Amino acid sequence: MKEHEVTGSAFDGKSADQSAKARLRICSRMEVIPGKELEEKFAKMKAWGMEGAEVNVDLYGREEQIRRALANAGLTAAMTNFGRNPGNIISPDPQERQLGIDSMKRKLESAGKVGCAGMLYVPLFGAPGNGETNQSIRARLVEVLHPLAEFALEHSTAIVFEPLCRMETSFLNRVSDAAAIARDVDSDGMKVMADFYHMSVEETDMMGAVISGGRYLTHVHLAGGLSDPRRSIPGQNRSRFVEGFRGLKYIGYDRFCSFECGIRGDREVEIPRSIEFLKREWELAVV
Amino acid sequence: MKEHEVTGSAFDGKSADQSAKARLRICSRMEVIPGKELEEKFAKMKAWGMEGAEVNVDLYGREEQIRRALANAGLTAAMTNFGRNPGNIISPDPQERQLGIDSMKRKLESAGKVGCAGMLYVPLFGAPGNGETNQSIRARLVEVLHPLAEFALEHSTAIVFEPLCRMETSFLNRVSDAAAIARDVDSDGMKVMADFYHMSVEETDMMGAVISGGRYLTHVHLAGGLSDPRRSIPGQNRSRFVEGFRGLKYIGYDRFCSFECGIRGDREVEIPRSIEFLKREWELAVV
Repeated sequence: MKEHEVTGSAFDGKSADQSAKARLRICSRMEVIPGKELEEKFAKMKAWGMEGAEVNVDLYGREEQIRRALANAGLTAAMTNFGRNPGNIISPDPQERQLGIDSMKRKLESAGKVGCAGMLYVPLFGAPGNGETNQSIRARLVEVLHPLAEFALEHSTAIVFEPLCRMETSFLNRVSDAAAIARDVDSDGMKVMADFYHMSVEETDMMGAVISGGRYLTHVHLAGGLSDPRRSIPGQNRSRFVEGFRGLKYIGYDRFCSFECGIRGDREVEIPRSIEFLKREWELAVV
Repeated sequence: MKEHEVTGSAFDGKSADQSAKARLRICSRMEVIPGKELEEKFAKMKAWGMEGAEVNVDLYGREEQIRRALANAGLTAAMTNFGRNPGNIISPDPQERQLGIDSMKRKLESAGKVGCAGMLYVPLFGAPGNGETNQSIRARLVEVLHPLAEFALEHSTAIVFEPLCRMETSFLNRVSDAAAIARDVDSDGMKVMADFYHMSVEETDMMGAVISGGRYLTHVHLAGGLSDPRRSIPGQNRSRFVEGFRGLKYIGYDRFCSFECGIRGDREVEIPRSIEFLKREWELAVV
């Protein structure tokens, strides 16, 4: 275990505030956007002022098609997700584990070809299997992820931890926890994401959580908080984003914030409306 | 489970920065200070500019004596600790649990009589017992601590979670984790502390961790980080405190920072020297 000392800009007596380089760059997961084909969705997203897309679809065999469609629309490949694939990289069973490793490598290769900055990964849904503890899962995860994260890096992408609230997993509920594991994996190919929906359940302070994500933070999911089981699109419930955005500004975040949410009403109206709401929240977030 | 919305000063468009009311108030645990009797230690602490004492000693039956000695020295009772006492409030065995509850109540009564702002409490040293998981411990802890935290409040004190690094416990390693449990205990008698030694192992960002502690943060331990197994007094190893202090300033922290550390050399020289070092670090922490 290495010591992680207090370093950086602190020592010159200046603020650690990096807000000058922070930008609100919005993208979306595919199911949120109306339209049948990806091309149709991408065109709408671009017209609404989005700068990228979270292509949470099967990429395998159509990498070049998706890459070209994004380029044609003038969008960046923000992120993809591992999804439900064969195997499990943290299974105690070596065969199951190898299957998971192979699945993940295949997805990472596809992600790299499309140009995705990373691939979202949830280590565990639900509760751990018999005899497993968070400690045993963490230890296996750190061990198995190091070479995979290096593999991701070789393919110009990254593995990105997705913390979920405790109703969805009993392992990895907080951004700081994901960041600490990413740090121990010790590869530039290992990152974390922050989801404002899950954070509304698990985090005591949005800004604190985001700062703890710090240099590991590579993606953000946008949705309203727990009191609304629909995970409403920002602006459609009472959840505010100023405190989280304040954290993003503080660390100079310039990666994507992505819609992962439900929408009531006409999507063609409600999505642009939400983007305007988010821009106002961003302006209110004074560091 | 309640939703914890983004609230507070954010919405008026002003900074959440509370640094105007932050103060560096230093105190110490008793074993750090040279001298035989508490009175002798207190006098030295006062002379060195400390404002309080962490009276990590047996208080029972001598509450009035200690209260008076602190008052005579012009020091505040910063904190005490639960220490190793009979029973265990999170034991699955009801008898063992009741013993722990009784021990804790007795200590809280003493803490209140002395005027301590809180009593430090480590839920688990080492690894959990057979069949226990962090989830099962957390659930029992939240249940059993609510009435105890309310009891603490009635006695004008608080129970204060002390997160330790993973070499010392497999449960409760991060400030944000402690704060989230404190939030779920849902009593003003439940608080958390931050220890810069343990944080150097577990936290990715000192400022992020402190902000996540936020309104629950009631005490801080001062010691250098992991590369130095002696936990040297601040200034005697290469650990810096600017980033953590930046967090304390940001949240407007005005509670105590307490020496819990080893010291090489003459304590009469090294303790005042460390206080001067900490004051300079505090000044460098620009929010």
